[in-house]
This record gives sequence, structure tokens and C-alpha cells, in this order.
Amino acid sequence: MSKSSENGCVQCFLHYETPKTLVIPSKTIGCVFRFAQFVVLFYIVGYVCVVRKAYQETDSVISSVTTKVKGFAYTNTSYMEPRFWDVADYVIPPQTPDSFFVMTNMIITRKQFQSRCPEFPGPLTTCTDDCDCFEGHNDPRGSGIQTGRCVNFSATVKTCQVFSWCPLEIDTVLPEPALLAAAEDFTVLIKNSITYPKFDFHGRNILPHINSSYLKTCEFNRTTDPDCPIFRLKDIALEAGEDFQDMAVKGGVLGILIDWSCDLDWWEDKCYPKYSFRRLDDKNPFNNVAPGYNFRFAKYYLTPDGVETRTLIKAYGIRFDIIVFGTAGRFGIVPTIINLGAALTILGLIPHVCDWILLTCMEKREVYKKNKVTEFNDGDSDSVSMGTTYGTQ
Amino acid sequence: MSKSSENGCVQCFLHYETPKTLVIPSKTIGCVFRFAQFVVLFYIVGYVCVVRKAYQETDSVISSVTTKVKGFAYTNTSYMEPRFWDVADYVIPPQTPDSFFVMTNMIITRKQFQSRCPEFPGPLTTCTDDCDCFEGHNDPRGSGIQTGRCVNFSATVKTCQVFSWCPLEIDTVLPEPALLAAAEDFTVLIKNSITYPKFDFHGRNILPHINSSYLKTCEFNRTTDPDCPIFRLKDIALEAGEDFQDMAVKGGVLGILIDWSCDLDWWEDKCYPKYSFRRLDDKNPFNNVAPGYNFRFAKYYLTPDGVETRTLIKAYGIRFDIIVFGTAGRFGIVPTIINLGAALTILGLIPHVCDWILLTCMEKREVYKKNKVTEFNDGDSDSVSMGTTYGTQ
Amino acid sequence: MSKSSENGCVQCFLHYETPKTLVIPSKTIGCVFRFAQFVVLFYIVGYVCVVRKAYQETDSVISSVTTKVKGFAYTNTSYMEPRFWDVADYVIPPQTPDSFFVMTNMIITRKQFQSRCPEFPGPLTTCTDDCDCFEGHNDPRGSGIQTGRCVNFSATVKTCQVFSWCPLEIDTVLPEPALLAAAEDFTVLIKNSITYPKFDFHGRNILPHINSSYLKTCEFNRTTDPDCPIFRLKDIALEAGEDFQDMAVKGGVLGILIDWSCDLDWWEDKCYPKYSFRRLDDKNPFNNVAPGYNFRFAKYYLTPDGVETRTLIKAYGIRFDIIVFGTAGRFGIVPTIINLGAALTILGLIPHVCDWILLTCMEKREVYKKNKVTEFNDGDSDSVSMGTTYGTQ
Repeated sequence: MSKSSENGCVQCFLHYETPKTLVIPSKTIGCVFRFAQFVVLFYIVGYVCVVRKAYQETDSVISSVTTKVKGFAYTNTSYMEPRFWDVADYVIPPQTPDSFFVMTNMIITRKQFQSRCPEFPGPLTTCTDDCDCFEGHNDPRGSGIQTGRCVNFSATVKTCQVFSWCPLEIDTVLPEPALLAAAEDFTVLIKNSITYPKFDFHGRNILPHINSSYLKTCEFNRTTDPDCPIFRLKDIALEAGEDFQDMAVKGGVLGILIDWSCDLDWWEDKCYPKYSFRRLDDKNPFNNVAPGYNFRFAKYYLTPDGVETRTLIKAYGIRFDIIVFGTAGRFGIVPTIINLGAALTILGLIPHVCDWILLTCMEKREVYKKNKVTEFNDGDSDSVSMGTTYGTQ
Repeated sequence: MSKSSENGCVQCFLHYETPKTLVIPSKTIGCVFRFAQFVVLFYIVGYVCVVRKAYQETDSVISSVTTKVKGFAYTNTSYMEPRFWDVADYVIPPQTPDSFFVMTNMIITRKQFQSRCPEFPGPLTTCTDDCDCFEGHNDPRGSGIQTGRCVNFSATVKTCQVFSWCPLEIDTVLPEPALLAAAEDFTVLIKNSITYPKFDFHGRNILPHINSSYLKTCEFNRTTDPDCPIFRLKDIALEAGEDFQDMAVKGGVLGILIDWSCDLDWWEDKCYPKYSFRRLDDKNPFNNVAPGYNFRFAKYYLTPDGVETRTLIKAYGIRFDIIVFGTAGRFGIVPTIINLGAALTILGLIPHVCDWILLTCMEKREVYKKNKVTEFNDGDSDSVSMGTTYGTQ
Repeated sequence: MSKSSENGCVQCFLHYETPKTLVIPSKTIGCVFRFAQFVVLFYIVGYVCVVRKAYQETDSVISSVTTKVKGFAYTNTSYMEPRFWDVADYVIPPQTPDSFFVMTNMIITRKQFQSRCPEFPGPLTTCTDDCDCFEGHNDPRGSGIQTGRCVNFSATVKTCQVFSWCPLEIDTVLPEPALLAAAEDFTVLIKNSITYPKFDFHGRNILPHINSSYLKTCEFNRTTDPDCPIFRLKDIALEAGEDFQDMAVKGGVLGILIDWSCDLDWWEDKCYPKYSFRRLDDKNPFNNVAPGYNFRFAKYYLTPDGVETRTLIKAYGIRFDIIVFGTAGRFGIVPTIINLGAALTILGLIPHVCDWILLTCMEKREVYKKNKVTEFNDGDSDSVSMGTTYGTQ
């Protein structure tokens, strides 16, 4: 007792306390124990480290994309006079980051003036006399503001007159095949530079081994030219599992996905972009409210006598969204500790399981118990009379 | 000794070593022990698993948005002649991904020519004769490049002449209420398709149970039509806690947030978008430098004799940013192991705490010590004379 | 035996079982043990908590950006007649979220009509007679659709005639220095509002202590005005390590990075944006396919007799991408548990290491073994004859 009281504090700090253990020479439990350990270790190494790279910390990409569409088309149809189309005509607006729109089909309404004209016939618009029309009435499903007058739409039909951009657009008949069907052969050059700020890693989709002469002629092909950043629109649609001509009629949205996922520990020099393509809008046959993709824009003119007129264009086309994503991983001490710690805990559980097996399932369990477990009983001092002295701790 | 030396390696591998333990029949410490265990287990199950779903691995959304604004307006004010406005007039530019701008107010300056005109009077621009003006002087706060001449601005005031687009824009008086106040009744159809690449999950905001006839008539309403993807601009502002008419005058930015957070383990079929609306720009009363949102654009014309002229429009309006976000969670073995491991470690701490209580707080602590802790003392062999043989390990 | 059989279940639940331990009064092993503990604790506190803030849960930023460019320029060069440029002229398109384009250089082709004109001479276009030209031939590297006729390009050279926008654009000579070199003195006001939805934290880059009078005059400067949200384009290029005039000629992409990373536990009131600037496109000298950044757009006119004509502009300029990023961290119970758990596990490993040292490296190891490890041997009852009774567990 004296010893412990004298320099207890020193002991409690510098004495090392270790659990007393009992070795059980049973092959059965031994095997179970070792096997369990092996399984856990295998999981840690094989799955967490190799497959999931759980020892890495990650960063997400910062990207910049510029696109340049090339190609022109010539249309000579019943819908309009022969016309030549180049980039400035069919890319609207001329530049958008991370996206570009190629007009493939359109409904053009020329020489619209702010004026009055009869509505298209319909349940709400046909009338017999002015009483049926209400001045200033604004029907969202109509084409303009009613003037309150009922006028001849045709020899037979009278409809309410509206104040609007007249003549009104007739968007019931859509050119098919698409006017700019030739757009399928247009090409686009995509320049993409990325950064992983946390790792100060920079990359671009024009790879070092690509020289400019190659770039002038090449064209992306999954098998032969997987690194060429120049894509033929038709191929993009094809890779996305769509038919360009089908999409061209009513328009749609195609995604150009660039995956920059990289393992910067081992393959920093192999950090290449992987291209994939997918239709992003829904081409669901039912639910076909405003199917495809279209929008209206106008070119404004002044007549010689200063009156504003416009050409309204309902543009159908394909919007290409360039979606750059990916996460880079590099060894990080924190995730490593976390995962290691977690895994080791599982190791630490094994003995508990084995003890349970030992004391419940094995036939010699009673004997094992005797040796392993001591029942504390007060007052009885035999158990402490064996020349052991007691250290505080 | 012999035994251990003979086949030590076999033992060290297949013998199972387990700590000797002492059972203490004290209800007090027993309760403490079990209670602590219960608390930790409750935390693990209740909080980590149920509330936080810490057993899931997550993926963030890849999204594509298209918008289609509908509606028209008629203006008949003192600011300009009667005019009819449709989508092509007030949506600028005609298409932008993830965003659309609706012009609600404007200052129009017509028939601007590249020419010379007197500056607006101001401390820096008023002059008495040419000496006060400096040819080529370019004052950022001015309206053009000074020609060096001092000319009559009005009968009484002389100002420096500038080379600029003349006549100069007068943007001091802003129409109020907004010219296109009627824009509050415009509607927008938002089509949003999303993907969680890691889980190969696809979703769209036009839900399966929505048919196209419903879509033609419905309008979003938090309570009655929470799934309708057609929004009235006024309602968006309202939900964002703003008054549309107030915003319409000076413009602003409204965010349409679409939350696609999903639990793909249990509710994959219930993975619906949740809409929320928020004003994104600051309407801070002080700090009102360039409050609201506006920008300038021009329509260019050629006069019959080939001179370029333009109509300058300072467009005030509301930009709607569609922000799609959310993370999907699905059971993952790695996060499960990590969280389980971490939680179990806490369980593993409890015995240490209990031991400490046992050996310091309980009255019988001395006796417990005697039984639990053995002081190693060299040379004394009693402690090893009890028929036990020693296995290496 | 009786006791255990009677109320085993009660015992197994309320009896506390604790390992028997052996105190080893060895300073050596004691020091090793304590030192190891200290190291791990130091790592936990110092690195995981302080440096990495591993106890925090994070959220990523939702942001809204509006920009307003100010400034005008006057060009008087041999390339075109004297001209005045303001925002409406050089920002194309007039508004884009998170980005703005400033035209700095251009090639203008006026009075283009849909008509026929000779191709530029080249290996594929020069011809001797009509047989060399193929009607309808569409060469992507050409300028239009061949009409099949061979006409005089000049007195000496004959080339195939094409149907196109004539006259054709001549983009071989690029004005240098850039036409709008003065753009370097343009300024841009960036208004950025952010939100961390998970923490319901809102912030804006116009800080509370900034008043509007300051905002009207200030200009960003890393040292003197680090909080001013008004940037001079020249300075942006400079900070990005580029020369504005160089970029102005062929164009490029500059990134304005706004970092909103914040520690909301301690510095919520200090959650300020940090600006940095970086060139995002590659200015790689080799691989110079389509170097810089340019695109084509056109202004469309009608001649008095209703024929469509256009002015084609190949616009070179600098696109400024505003990239807002950052993660906010705030104390979270889950990550804390995880990291704590993981760290404590490491603590839990130390005894195993020390035991190994104890039983293999220390000279007294044999004696230690005797006391620590008991070899189980069946049938021998001495080990259980010491007045201890056996509790089930």
C-alpha cells in the first residue's frame, strides 16, 4: 500500500497498464479469429483503398468552355426563296458560355407591322358582329388585343379584330424535313480548359500530343479519334442515341458531357477528358406539351418612311449544353485517418464476436469461462494473497 | 517453456488470446454502463442513420432547363405611341440556358446617329467658350468624346460638344408605373430534366401523372397545383416575398430554385422537384448604386441613303435564374462502414469511462482495484506458481 | 455455480465486466506509451480540428451575378470611318448571366447580299473553265455553294463562283493594335449575392461598410480598395498575368473568381468574398488552332426596295466569366463524431503497439509474459482453486 500512496502520481503517469490475457489453444476459435481478421483486412485494402480510393480528398472542377461552329447550308424550298445560311444566320444568340444553339427549322413571318388584323377563327374568336368582341380584351391564347370590332377573316368567316404585329404568325405547318437539314454536317470545335483549385491542377481538352495540323483536319470518333475536340453535329446526336433529322424538325437539347474525373496520385499525366453525349430534354411521346425546343425572335427594320417593321422567326433547333463535371482525388491525411480508423474499429470488434462464440457455442465453454472470467467476491482475500501488491493507477 | 519454443509460430497464429476479465456484481456501475451504451446506440440509430442518413453516399445533380414565356401586352402611354408587345419584343436575348429576362420597363432613344451634340449641363460640361473644352477628352461620366467646341445646349446654357450617338439618352425620368406592368400576368413553362450520373437516375419536372391536357391549362399554385411547371410571373414574385410592380420599375433578379434532393433507397418513386422562389439581387435601400437590374441594347437600322442609325433601349426588367440543385443519397458501403466504425468507437470508450468511475468514485474502489489490477513485481514467482504454463504469443 | 444459474440473465445485464490488468512499473514503456498518446492527441487537436476543421459540415454556394460595363471609345483608323462606341455597341449579347463579352477587335464586312461572287483563289477554288466547278458543291473550307460557273476573280485569276453572302468576308488581315484598344479603361460593376441554403446564410459582395458615394468613385485595387466591386478591365488582365493589349487583338477568356469560403462558426461576420483573376482559355503558342476568342454575328437591314442585306461582324474580344465558388463550414455533430471516432481508434491502437514492444523488444520480456499471459490448460484446477467463484456472463 505504502508504495502506491507515495508516488502514485508518477506511477499513474509513467507506469504502463496492460490487460492480462488468456491464451486458448483451440484451433477452431483461432481459425475463426484469423479468418475474420483476414476478411476485414481484405475489405479495407481491396475495396476502400483500391476501388473507392477512400484515402483521397477530392476537389470539383472549375471549367471554361468556348465553342466555334463551322458550316453553311443552302435552302431552296417552297417555304421561302433560295437562301444561303452561315454561322451568323443560324447560331442564336451569337455566343453563350457553355452552350450553343443551332437553328435547324423555322417559321418566318415577314413584314409584320403594328396594326390591326382579324384573329384566326376559333371558338373564342369567331363573331357575328362587334358585340361579340370586347375592346381591350387580352386572351393569352389569342394573338393580340381585341379592338372590339368584328371583321371578315375570309369571305365566309368573321372574327374579332386584334391589334398586334400583323400579319399574324401561322405556326400550324412546320417544314418537314427540317429546312436546315444540312446542319447535320456542321462541325463544332469545343475548347475546354479546367482547373482543380485545391490541387492547383490545370488541364485542357486539346491534349499536348495534338498538333495544330491534326486539329485542322480531325473529327471526333469514339474509336479512331477519341481525342479530337471537333465534333460533327450528326455524330453527337448519333452517340446520344438520337436521329439528327428527327430532332431537327422540332428541336431539342443535347448534352455534351465532358468528364474530367482524375486520380492525381497515380495518373496525373493521364488526366484526360472523357466525352459522352445524351439527350437532355424529354422526348416523351405523351405529355407532348411544347415538345422539342423552339423560341421566337425578330429582326427589326425601319421602312423608308420611318415605320418599324419586323420579321418574326419562330426558331426550332438543337441547343447543345456542354456540361463539364468530374472530381479529382489526391491522397489526403484526414480521409485516410477517418477510413483507417473506421476500418480498424471493425477489426477491434472481432475479439468481442470471438469471445461470444467462445463462451456460448464451444463445448468447453464452461471451462473457458472459469479461466477467463473471475467473479468478484468481497471479503475473500485469497485472491489477493498471492504476493501481489497493489498499485494505484 | 519447451512447448512454446517448439511450435511458437503455430500458436501465435492459431491460438486465440482473450483478455481475462473480472465481473463486478454492482448494480450501480452496471446501470451506468448499460445506460451509456443505450445513449450511444440511440444516437447511432436515431440520429446518424434516420435523421442524417449518414450511411448513404451522395451524388449531385446534372440538369438541363428550357423555358418558354407566354403573354403579350399593350402600352398606350405618354412615353411612346401605342404599341403591342410579344415575346420576341420583351425577352432579351431570345434564349439563354438556365435563365430568362423579361423586360418590364424601358427608356427608348430613337433615331440616334453618329454625330455631334452638346453635352448635358453639369459641373464638368458647362462652358463659356471653346477653351473650356478639350478635343478628344473622354470623361467616363460624360456622354461622348469632346470635340473641343463649346455650343449652345439651350438658349441660356452652353456646354461642351461631344461626338457620340446623338441625340443623347435622357435616363433621368423612368416611367412609373412600369411600361410593361402587364408582364405580371405572363406565364412561363419551365421544362427541367435531371440526372444523377452515379446512380443512373433520370427525372423531369413534368411528372408521369401529368397529362398534356392538364399542362395546357394548369398554373403553379403551392397548395392546389404544386406540380404544374407553368408559373405566373406575379406568383413567382409573390412567393419570393416581393411585389412584382415594385420590381418591374427598376428591375431585379428572381431565383427559381428547384430542389431535387432525393432518398433513392426508400423513395425513388417519390423523387419529385420542390420549387422555391427567392429574390437573388439585393434591394438594399442604402447602398443603392445601380439598384435593380438593367442593361442597354440597340436596334440598328440603315437609312435609305445607307447611313447607320439606331434605337437605343435601356431595358429594365426581371431576370429569372433557374437554379437546379439537390443531392441524391443511396446506401453505400463505405460511408456506412465509416459511420458505423466511428459510432462503435464511442461504444468502445464507455468501458474506459466506467473503469474510471469504478476506481475513483465508488466506495469499494480499493477492493475493486485489488481484484482488477495486479502490480507487476519482479522475482516474485508466487504469482506464476499456480500451475499455469506460459505460452509465447 | 448455483448463483450463476439462478439469475444469470440479471447478471449478464447489470453486472459490469472489466478486464483484469497488470501494471508494469517500467519507465521506458511508460514513456513510449505516453509519448505515442501525446502525438496522436496533438494530431487530432492541431491538424484535424484546427487546420482542417474536420468537425464541420459543409455547404456549397448558390450565387447570382449581375454585371454592368461602363465606358466608351472613339475609333479613327484606316479600317473604317471615325466611329463612337458605347456599351450597346461592344457588349454582345447585351446580357448573359455570370458572364459578359467585351468586343475589342473586329472585321466588318458591309452590304452583304445573298448573291453570287467568285471564291477566293486557292488550290481547290481556282479554275480554268466551268468544268472545274461543280454546281451545288459545298466545301466546308470554302465560302459558299458553288454555282458551277468559273468566273474572273481578278484580271489574271479565275475562280469558281459561289452563291453566298457577297461580298465575301476577308478575315486575313486583323487590325493591330486592336480597334477598341481603349476598352482597357472600361470598368465593370459586379453585383454578387450568395446563399448557403443549409445554413440560411446570405451574403453580397457590396459589403455593409461600403456606402454608395464610395461605390460611385471607387475602383478595385488589391492593396488599397480590396472590397470595391468595380473593376477596370486592364487591371483584371494584369492580375491574371496577361497584357490587355495582347489579348485585345485576338481575344480570350478571363475568369473572375469570387471565393466565398467561410467559417461560419467563428467568422460569420467576416464572411467576405475574395477576388482572384485567371486566364481561362489556353494561350498555348503551338496548338494555335483558332487561338483567342472570336465569333461572327450580323446586323440585318432591308434596302428601300425590301431586299435583305446585312453587315457581318467577326468579333474578337474578351469574355469575362464570373465564377463564384466556395464552401461554408459550420460545426456538425456527425462529422465531429466521425473524426473523433476515427482519431480515438488510433489512440486505441497504441496499447497493442506497446504490448508488442513489451513482449518482444524489452529485455525483461519473458517475465512480463509470465505475468501478463496465461496459458489455458484443461483439467488443471489449481488455477481455479483460489477462492474465486465463477460467474456466467
